[in-house]
Amino acid sequence: MAETCPREFIELAHRLADAAGEVVSPLFRQKIDIISKDDDSPVTIADRNAEAAMRDIIEQVFPDHGIYGEEHGQVRLDAEYVWVLDPIDGTHSFISGVPTFATLIGLTRNGKPIMGLVDQPISKERWVGANGKTELNGQEIRTREEITAVSDASLFSWGVELLQSERGEQYRCLMESAARKRFGYDSYAYGLLAHGFIDIVADFDMKPFDYCALVPLVENAGGVITDWDGNALTLTNPGYVLASGNRALHQQALQILARV
Amino acid sequence: MAETCPREFIELAHRLADAAGEVVSPLFRQKIDIISKDDDSPVTIADRNAEAAMRDIIEQVFPDHGIYGEEHGQVRLDAEYVWVLDPIDGTHSFISGVPTFATLIGLTRNGKPIMGLVDQPISKERWVGANGKTELNGQEIRTREEITAVSDASLFSWGVELLQSERGEQYRCLMESAARKRFGYDSYAYGLLAHGFIDIVADFDMKPFDYCALVPLVENAGGVITDWDGNALTLTNPGYVLASGNRALHQQALQILARV
Repeated sequence: MAETCPREFIELAHRLADAAGEVVSPLFRQKIDIISKDDDSPVTIADRNAEAAMRDIIEQVFPDHGIYGEEHGQVRLDAEYVWVLDPIDGTHSFISGVPTFATLIGLTRNGKPIMGLVDQPISKERWVGANGKTELNGQEIRTREEITAVSDASLFSWGVELLQSERGEQYRCLMESAARKRFGYDSYAYGLLAHGFIDIVADFDMKPFDYCALVPLVENAGGVITDWDGNALTLTNPGYVLASGNRALHQQALQILARV
Repeated sequence: MAETCPREFIELAHRLADAAGEVVSPLFRQKIDIISKDDDSPVTIADRNAEAAMRDIIEQVFPDHGIYGEEHGQVRLDAEYVWVLDPIDGTHSFISGVPTFATLIGLTRNGKPIMGLVDQPISKERWVGANGKTELNGQEIRTREEITAVSDASLFSWGVELLQSERGEQYRCLMESAARKRFGYDSYAYGLLAHGFIDIVADFDMKPFDYCALVPLVENAGGVITDWDGNALTLTNPGYVLASGNRALHQQALQILARV
């Protein structure tokens, strides 16, 4: 089903993650300025310089590929291959000194995510999903298959703001159905879902640079990831993302979200 | 103001943390059974065996000291010195594969916390607060002094359950006053407050084994930690805990909590 991602693109993703990590790691737990963006979300020079470093490499190696970055905008989105970059997913975590932020590197072909890399440069954890498998630091990982009921499942989400979102009531139903729930942890939670330690992640207000890397990560580990209505996630999706460890669990979670 | 903690007790705390880490680390991200306790909170053999290992050492070295542990109960609470142990604070994080749980080791003298150790055995971060200073892996750290208004502060809390607590409306006021808020991260957040990267932590339903280690950690780094009414935290306190990076900020947070 999933499209093949050429090996040279996976190698480039590693190179990009290395470059971002070299910018970000020395700035972790340092006193650096926090700039408020137009949407009130925080950003630092770590975010901006890490994305610039990655873009420089892509422009050099594959100048015909597109780039969609959180900090420095979009070029050639009509290209066959588009790199979707979030230099620091979880800037709140980063500025609070919590090592669960991550650099996200996704690659889409004709708008469809075919490779995803999530890198945590402090704990030195790197997840890569493509071509039928997902690896954490080179070791293949799989989602949890035995938890197929929401009432037995752990649910992670970005923030309590979800409860105040347009679909907050639907979220509340899912939250109250789950066995355990936690907020925080950003994309790191999707890495742990791919690893079989978290069962469901539900988020809202997700931009393409937030989820494009996560799609191949979750799918190639045996999980399912769609929007809250069960639609595939592409470059042009709305912001509600639901990931589950297996298909049965995902179907049940979607049903709960559809109930209100 | 703060009482002196003899060096031999600090050395013992390190030995206890080493012993707990030896039990806990090999079980991290392994498929182990999750047992539901009477209060519905999860526990594993990692929690139980780590606390047993620490208790064995205390009984051997200081048989006249008291012990107050989360998993195996209380002995000699009328002793001058009582060790207050939480083998895995953040069991939810532990079983989800998130390396922000911690082993908490507090020492009280006549009910007053005089030494606190917080150990994260996976990231190998160990905070110790006693005798006028707080160290992270041997390096002295201080709280953030320049953020003195709640409207500029970051607020961390354990979980969204706070909003449904008896004092949920007070908490909501504090949450809505803060510049940034995050849930999750347990005692790890207090370590980052002591380090100057988080400004306020507010929690509820905190037992002595949840907060006794945190009091010396925060206070010796320059911060303030009390209950939500400004009372000192002792072995017999109610469960609402508020920590702030400095006195001015703490006073303002207490005022907001008192408003409703």
